[in-house]
Amino acid sequence: MATLDLGTDLLSLTRALCDLPSVSGDERAIADAVQDALTGYAHLEVLRDGDAVVARTHTGRPSRVVIAGHLDTVPIADNLPTRLIGEGALAELWGRGTVDMKAGVAVQLALAAELTEPTHDVTWVFYDHEEVAADLNGLGRLVRNHPDWVVGDFAVLCEPTNGGLEGGCNGTLRAEVRLAGVAAHSARAWMGRNAIHAAGEVLRRLEAYTPAEVEVDGLVYRESLNAVLISGGTAANVIPDACVVTVNYRFAPSASVEQATEHVRELFDGFDVVLTDAAPGARPGLDDPAAQDFARAVLGVTGGVLAAKYGWTDVARFSELGVPAVNFGPGDPLLAHKDDERCPVGQITLAHAALRAWLTS
Amino acid sequence: MATLDLGTDLLSLTRALCDLPSVSGDERAIADAVQDALTGYAHLEVLRDGDAVVARTHTGRPSRVVIAGHLDTVPIADNLPTRLIGEGALAELWGRGTVDMKAGVAVQLALAAELTEPTHDVTWVFYDHEEVAADLNGLGRLVRNHPDWVVGDFAVLCEPTNGGLEGGCNGTLRAEVRLAGVAAHSARAWMGRNAIHAAGEVLRRLEAYTPAEVEVDGLVYRESLNAVLISGGTAANVIPDACVVTVNYRFAPSASVEQATEHVRELFDGFDVVLTDAAPGARPGLDDPAAQDFARAVLGVTGGVLAAKYGWTDVARFSELGVPAVNFGPGDPLLAHKDDERCPVGQITLAHAALRAWLTS
Repeated sequence: MATLDLGTDLLSLTRALCDLPSVSGDERAIADAVQDALTGYAHLEVLRDGDAVVARTHTGRPSRVVIAGHLDTVPIADNLPTRLIGEGALAELWGRGTVDMKAGVAVQLALAAELTEPTHDVTWVFYDHEEVAADLNGLGRLVRNHPDWVVGDFAVLCEPTNGGLEGGCNGTLRAEVRLAGVAAHSARAWMGRNAIHAAGEVLRRLEAYTPAEVEVDGLVYRESLNAVLISGGTAANVIPDACVVTVNYRFAPSASVEQATEHVRELFDGFDVVLTDAAPGARPGLDDPAAQDFARAVLGVTGGVLAAKYGWTDVARFSELGVPAVNFGPGDPLLAHKDDERCPVGQITLAHAALRAWLTS
Repeated sequence: MATLDLGTDLLSLTRALCDLPSVSGDERAIADAVQDALTGYAHLEVLRDGDAVVARTHTGRPSRVVIAGHLDTVPIADNLPTRLIGEGALAELWGRGTVDMKAGVAVQLALAAELTEPTHDVTWVFYDHEEVAADLNGLGRLVRNHPDWVVGDFAVLCEPTNGGLEGGCNGTLRAEVRLAGVAAHSARAWMGRNAIHAAGEVLRRLEAYTPAEVEVDGLVYRESLNAVLISGGTAANVIPDACVVTVNYRFAPSASVEQATEHVRELFDGFDVVLTDAAPGARPGLDDPAAQDFARAVLGVTGGVLAAKYGWTDVARFSELGVPAVNFGPGDPLLAHKDDERCPVGQITLAHAALRAWLTS
């Protein structure tokens, strides 16, 4: 079994985590190593569900915070083992997982080991299956199987934010715009009605659409509405009688799924619109005093900014439990999933210092 | 082995052919029956290549005509065995193959048996694999393997024409219009460029396109240009970086494949257009004296009209050999391949009488 030394320096710990591959569905080895490493600390109660590991303090503080990160990564793209490029303040750690999100996990593990008496009781959560279909998500499974393991007054997800603070997240929905026509042999096209040509109007409306920017609790959420898939036709000699345009609407957390669906229906008025998938956004929750304390403490150290999170993230799962939650972690989110994924070493150190400052002040 | 009685009445012969299923690829039994039936006639030389059967007279006439039909059908749609509905002049034979094209084959077989001394030497061709990919086509195979079996001064394909005469055929080409974009996570759509949205302009041009009607040798060919397939996108959370629209252009036989390709390129100026498949059309050839004789003889009997053939048919194979060729046969071509495929019995009788008049006068 791989072993992790939580007392080593942050860079070495991050590399050890990255160099232990854990593509979604294959997190057993890293979960075993994390569980084993944490079990050595007397101030932590260590729990396990599938390949998720939870470690929590019981110091009797009046408040409890949840600090969570996922152990899995997207598939490796010939970018492991990690490589350290550059020196000193410019050094960057290259490789799969450095940004999304094993640098964040390293910060969590180091602090879990070190902070025997944090100023809030802390529940450290390490979970599986974040990078795949939502119904497999390990945090979702914990919420279902052991809701008591993940409750708290405030939650932090250590997803990459460049050391800034990202609050809430956009909601997302997918809908199919279904066009119907009349099939005919293409040698006698005038006997049919072309469903693909009918999709031209759908694409025209998408092209003309101006996505909104919506302010929610002081943060600006940038929306988008795009065709992500299109498919039509049955054979190269048949006038197509069906075409489906799948659109993805990313909407500000001030709108409900119902309101967002209605917006899409209005845009495609006159067309057959079928909702196929939706998840609500999460308001940033930065009006909550715990969140404000957190923001002051960590941004004071990193000098990062407060911004809206665009992508749907697991903060929405906390939001549904009524727990205010934010994203805060090392690494540039734009480099997540990229072949040239890499994280400045300085950001890992700074994120560690910032969380440490918050949990010790 | 199934047996065919070529001396029976036309309706019974048509039914016997239809009730012997021969979906493309499964023509062995019907080819065996046709070969066996023709072999009984001393005035015919019978040849075989795969599941194609050729029977020809050698009476020493100065001219030879080729009269061809295919033995295969599209898949059965619960429409066999045949049913006779209605009586007398209104009777119709319902079922797979009645139109496309076993009524025509029945007319061929009856005349092949009966006409021991036709006014032109006749090569009767019965071939396989017409309803599937062009490279499997039995007539094409005969042209490659035994060109001497299919040469003549004039050719008739007994495809359904409602008893009229259809000359030549449109050419056909397929091209892909390929749109490129830049992939991005759909939560940050503004980082990418949507290739599906770009297809909107392609569909807009198709929608605005007015197909031409082109007169060739006195017949009017109706063209068409349609999107037949569209496909784009890789996943429901990714801004698509590629979209392909497959268009099918059916063009009048006065244009070459090169000219037709250029027309498509001009229409989609500014886009990446890749030709994937093309077949030239065939001019009607009705300026040929043999064709004019034929038209006078058969239309005098059926009262049918002379018209352009829109779909690409095997007459183009004769055209490429320099043999003028036309379509003439019983049945409404619009009912070919339909579940309710059916042929008026009167048309079968009339087609037989018309070809008989031509070959005996």
